[in-house]
Amino acid sequence: MSWVKVVGLGVGAAALLGLGIILGHFAIPKGVERPVPQDLDLEILEAVMKQLDAGKIRENLRELSRQPHVASSPRDEALVQLLLQRWGDQASGLDEARTVEYEVLLSFPSPERPNLVEVVVPNGAVLHAYLPKEENVTGEQGGSDVVQPYAAYAPSGTPQGLLIYANHGTEDDFQYLLNQGINLEGTIALTRYGVAGRGAKAVNAAKHGVVGVLVYTDPGDINDGHSFPNETFPYSWGLPPSGVERGSYYEYFGDPVTPYLPAHPSSFRLDSNNASGFPPIPAQPIGFQDAEGLLCNLQGPAAPASWKGALHCEYRLGPGFKSGGDFTEDSQVKVSVHNHLELRNSSNVLGIIRGAVEPDRYVVYGNHRDSWVHGAVDPSSGTAVLLELSRVLGTLLKKGTWRPRRSIVLASWGAEEFGLIGSTEFTEEFFSKLQERTVAYINVDISVFASATLRGQGTPPVQSVIFSAAKEIRSPGPSGLSIYDNWIRYTNRSSPVYGWIPSMGTLGAGSDYAPFIHYLGISSMDIAYTYDRSKTSARIYPTYHTAFDTFEYVEKFVDPDFSSHQAVARMAGSVLLRLSDSFFLPLKVSDYSETLHGFLQAAQQDLRDLLEQHGISLGPLVTAVEKFEAAATALGQRISDLQKGSPDPLQVRMVNDQLMLLERTFLNPRAFPEERYYSHVLWAPRRGSVATFPGLANACSKANNTDHGSEEWAEVHRQLSIVVAALEGAAATLRPVDDL
Amino acid sequence: MSWVKVVGLGVGAAALLGLGIILGHFAIPKGVERPVPQDLDLEILEAVMKQLDAGKIRENLRELSRQPHVASSPRDEALVQLLLQRWGDQASGLDEARTVEYEVLLSFPSPERPNLVEVVVPNGAVLHAYLPKEENVTGEQGGSDVVQPYAAYAPSGTPQGLLIYANHGTEDDFQYLLNQGINLEGTIALTRYGVAGRGAKAVNAAKHGVVGVLVYTDPGDINDGHSFPNETFPYSWGLPPSGVERGSYYEYFGDPVTPYLPAHPSSFRLDSNNASGFPPIPAQPIGFQDAEGLLCNLQGPAAPASWKGALHCEYRLGPGFKSGGDFTEDSQVKVSVHNHLELRNSSNVLGIIRGAVEPDRYVVYGNHRDSWVHGAVDPSSGTAVLLELSRVLGTLLKKGTWRPRRSIVLASWGAEEFGLIGSTEFTEEFFSKLQERTVAYINVDISVFASATLRGQGTPPVQSVIFSAAKEIRSPGPSGLSIYDNWIRYTNRSSPVYGWIPSMGTLGAGSDYAPFIHYLGISSMDIAYTYDRSKTSARIYPTYHTAFDTFEYVEKFVDPDFSSHQAVARMAGSVLLRLSDSFFLPLKVSDYSETLHGFLQAAQQDLRDLLEQHGISLGPLVTAVEKFEAAATALGQRISDLQKGSPDPLQVRMVNDQLMLLERTFLNPRAFPEERYYSHVLWAPRRGSVATFPGLANACSKANNTDHGSEEWAEVHRQLSIVVAALEGAAATLRPVDDL
Repeated sequence: MSWVKVVGLGVGAAALLGLGIILGHFAIPKGVERPVPQDLDLEILEAVMKQLDAGKIRENLRELSRQPHVASSPRDEALVQLLLQRWGDQASGLDEARTVEYEVLLSFPSPERPNLVEVVVPNGAVLHAYLPKEENVTGEQGGSDVVQPYAAYAPSGTPQGLLIYANHGTEDDFQYLLNQGINLEGTIALTRYGVAGRGAKAVNAAKHGVVGVLVYTDPGDINDGHSFPNETFPYSWGLPPSGVERGSYYEYFGDPVTPYLPAHPSSFRLDSNNASGFPPIPAQPIGFQDAEGLLCNLQGPAAPASWKGALHCEYRLGPGFKSGGDFTEDSQVKVSVHNHLELRNSSNVLGIIRGAVEPDRYVVYGNHRDSWVHGAVDPSSGTAVLLELSRVLGTLLKKGTWRPRRSIVLASWGAEEFGLIGSTEFTEEFFSKLQERTVAYINVDISVFASATLRGQGTPPVQSVIFSAAKEIRSPGPSGLSIYDNWIRYTNRSSPVYGWIPSMGTLGAGSDYAPFIHYLGISSMDIAYTYDRSKTSARIYPTYHTAFDTFEYVEKFVDPDFSSHQAVARMAGSVLLRLSDSFFLPLKVSDYSETLHGFLQAAQQDLRDLLEQHGISLGPLVTAVEKFEAAATALGQRISDLQKGSPDPLQVRMVNDQLMLLERTFLNPRAFPEERYYSHVLWAPRRGSVATFPGLANACSKANNTDHGSEEWAEVHRQLSIVVAALEGAAATLRPVDDL
Repeated sequence: MSWVKVVGLGVGAAALLGLGIILGHFAIPKGVERPVPQDLDLEILEAVMKQLDAGKIRENLRELSRQPHVASSPRDEALVQLLLQRWGDQASGLDEARTVEYEVLLSFPSPERPNLVEVVVPNGAVLHAYLPKEENVTGEQGGSDVVQPYAAYAPSGTPQGLLIYANHGTEDDFQYLLNQGINLEGTIALTRYGVAGRGAKAVNAAKHGVVGVLVYTDPGDINDGHSFPNETFPYSWGLPPSGVERGSYYEYFGDPVTPYLPAHPSSFRLDSNNASGFPPIPAQPIGFQDAEGLLCNLQGPAAPASWKGALHCEYRLGPGFKSGGDFTEDSQVKVSVHNHLELRNSSNVLGIIRGAVEPDRYVVYGNHRDSWVHGAVDPSSGTAVLLELSRVLGTLLKKGTWRPRRSIVLASWGAEEFGLIGSTEFTEEFFSKLQERTVAYINVDISVFASATLRGQGTPPVQSVIFSAAKEIRSPGPSGLSIYDNWIRYTNRSSPVYGWIPSMGTLGAGSDYAPFIHYLGISSMDIAYTYDRSKTSARIYPTYHTAFDTFEYVEKFVDPDFSSHQAVARMAGSVLLRLSDSFFLPLKVSDYSETLHGFLQAAQQDLRDLLEQHGISLGPLVTAVEKFEAAATALGQRISDLQKGSPDPLQVRMVNDQLMLLERTFLNPRAFPEERYYSHVLWAPRRGSVATFPGLANACSKANNTDHGSEEWAEVHRQLSIVVAALEGAAATLRPVDDL
């Protein structure tokens, strides 16, 4: 053959070989093909943002708030069915939906014997009777399913005594009265909502021999002073004079008689007579119209300036009524409470979307379903958002367009108003599973308190994903600003790491995140839209927990175009998707360093000298914080490096486990034996004044006036060692996993 | 061209293309190559089995037991250096080795004021003095570094009183004495080792007014009755008459003054005067030669048959000595104890082999290093094994022949003899990290008690990997049987699932597995070789905790050719490799079903009627056990199915996490508030008589004689609910991970 042919054959052979090699390499899937790392699909995110519809949220809210749906009521059960139906829908439902029912101890007033507040004279004659019940101003306050205003879990009784005014009912307030020479024994205390928890007012009062407590809402606290009907709902945003804030007066959270156990019918139950946490004396909430009648007739010393609200009279302390007013000087207040405890069935509804790649990693998103009355803002504004978000996600799911990388659990909690009961029972029942697998908990209780700005609360690791989401979503209204840029104008702080950023709040026990963060140690957050604090100083939106929290209220005065509801739905959806779909979990554990440094600095400033006098050094704490910071920073660097390459999913999983489990390392179930559930050494309730680690702050507060070597000072040292051990343990989990 | 040529060209082209395709598919690594699933390499396993050398174990033991090395002594520190050196060796060391030091509260006698036991008459004259100190029979008992026999943590004092004999010093024993009309107030109690824990004897005695306790070793319990010198070491296996068992008399485990916190110098410490768990009265152990002198001179009622040992005299109860014997009737026993508490530095040594694929999964293998005297059997027989195993693994590692899939942590614990201190401090310091990542804990304390058969203790999930290993290793001796087949002849049971299998023991607090299983909830095991119970009824190998536990003793009477040591090294190595290298974790969680059924049956048989009388139903427990069984079985099936294909490492990781974390689900830190560390609802100490769930058994025991509605019966219900919740939670974690 000629050399041309030989060369030609050679080239052809080479070409064929090369083609074969290329085909073999790329076109034939390997027998055990690695799944392409699935990361957050920005198109999906964009689609979800677009599809979340304000009008649909509105219609959800209209339906949800149509009837009162207090926990365990027939309407509450009907809403369970509504959720099941939506989450089971062929076109827009989830993979699975089911209910989990608990038998929980609730408290209700007695319809046939309404709670009463009366002014009586010594021979028993009634000078005046107040029936705490809201006026049927809009036609929605009169139904038999509107539960009478009452203090849930307050015991029954008919205490009677001279009336005194005790401001917020804190321990300091009662001390002040004692210092004024007022004899509290046998009195009825009129207190105003705020500052102290509901149940705490009764506890503090009882300590001083008070026999009954009334709690009212002062127009100064709720209405920026406005109190005339035309300044209140339905004419304006404010609380009408007959409006009464209901609420749980139970000290702890969770079903009161099955602490640490799920409330199944067969579960061990504490004797409800013995169970701790119930108010020790009868209590009853009233509106400011009724309160005015009582308060403005008091005699006695003038109340100090800080005790005065916006009722139109002189605030006096009592005891007893003045002569020449509406009542006689010897008349007393009689509070008749006929509440009763009742075991009731309350359900959680769980909706599940199975994760495509890591189904054993859960993102849990919860909202409570039960209300006090219509609950349009609380909680149905959040339920409406939940339903719309689940519709949009479910639609993508059913179409086959999307499945999350990790599993999503949507939860509708029951009986939250009574004490976060549904969510707490859930965490008790599924403790191990949740603790091992839950990446984060997202709470949206009330979605829109007001329409001015985002409000974010959470533990530091979730700050960055909330910021990321907020930067990409337009805020409601014409400003054109992102939610983030709008937010930062309302509430901001100077971060040593980031400069000016929005301020996130911390997590107490105000909503269903409490068992997740405090009992399970799961990074958690709460997302809502809220007030412009330059425009109102209302403690909370005025119709909170009243029969005036209706759809009409929301539509007229809170969020008429539902664009804030939509903004919250987008925020929640964006955060949810980032957590469920991102290859690397968007939990930034190094953001804990700021918190720790803040706590440390406060301790150094305010406690170091005192501690040294007692032979306790903060040195180990300084070291522990430094170690945490170094380990967290280094981990962040390792993650950055990993993100530059094409990391193995197993490697990413290992790093994600470190991020997910960091929050757990702060749990110590033996740290606070006198608390219920609280086990997180950074976020347990702080009762001491120094803004540092709560265990340390509280122990120092107690030890302050005790001797050297006292048990109280030993407890200070123990609390310090607990924090040091937790921080060192946390740092250890953030170090390279093979660095043992 | 001719058709032949065309065909030829076509065939050639196809061949080239095909070759190219093949080359491209197989020969060129893909840009992001998935690592081939690494499973246990049987050749590596075989190599390790072969390389573990009996002679090297012997030489290790010779060196380790050359000098007494009580915790924190200079020789103990020297052994720390030896370990660091071996684990840092260029050719056979590990990736990393380091020490972690703690400051722990130990207890020692005072060399300048030895503890004494004297018989004194009322005027103070000493009739006879016993100095509890072993006779220098082999030249190794006389050194100044041989710590005098003493009861660690027993308080100092010089109590004196009439002697009584109280058998094992259990509560029942003291009750018996009271029933015989014996006045215990102010007496000295002579008890024998066994049945009750050391410290418990003192606690029980003190409750009845006894002022001092002596504890001796009866030849009937330890020597099968033999007591003559020629029947004991160095002539035979038995305990010499002067031999004394030392030991910790502390009630709990862990450093006594830093419960739940690592014992760093700056840690909070309890006041050692206040710390609970120390014996309330002085105590002192003695040998049977001295005991005979005291016991055989007692007057009073004859002891019941079950109280008699093998000393050559009538066993009487006292109080006081008989006339006509060696002492006068009015003479008393005076026990002078001069122990003192001391803060000492004790180290753990950690040796690390980083995992190649899942470095964040740990297999921890531990042995304690500290002894009472030479500690040839206890613990150096185990330390010798640890060193040989680490040499063989290290050699493969340094050669680059092998790296485990998961990380291996070898641990040399300090201060175990004082109460599992080193291991407990380790679990306190690294609580979160260990709990999140540890696959299993392997303990080899004493490796060879005797040379007859394997002894395996552990929680059910580890049974199968121990069986698998045992089936593949030849047992020592000429039988040619596998360790498994030899084992099953000595101790077996009928399993409803497996038929006849060897019996595994359960885990109490006898060695360093205790904090791992009870505090951290990590599946744990203990491996050793042990006695032929048809040949001896010795409570434990006779020279246990005495100055006769020497290399000579092991070489002559325990394991002359060290083939049992080698067998244990092979067992531990095989189990270790199976846990560190197998793709699917060899933890068989379904093996828990038998245990649960057993507990359930006992409860049903012995408690159901009683519980029903008090309105407590076992129904939920039955259901919970069934759910667990179903979930565990189904998981086993899913694993089998996965194993048939080529599963994705992420999928295997998810299933392995379920297996690893199962043991955690049985932890409940609030279950047993009166216990220290014990949190595992299946393995906490059972003090009640029914062989069921310990919390239930104990609560029923306490409630048995109380009224309806008593707090004790409420506690029974609470304990039942705790178990039910744990089992339900366990089942929930075993279900398919996306089945929420």
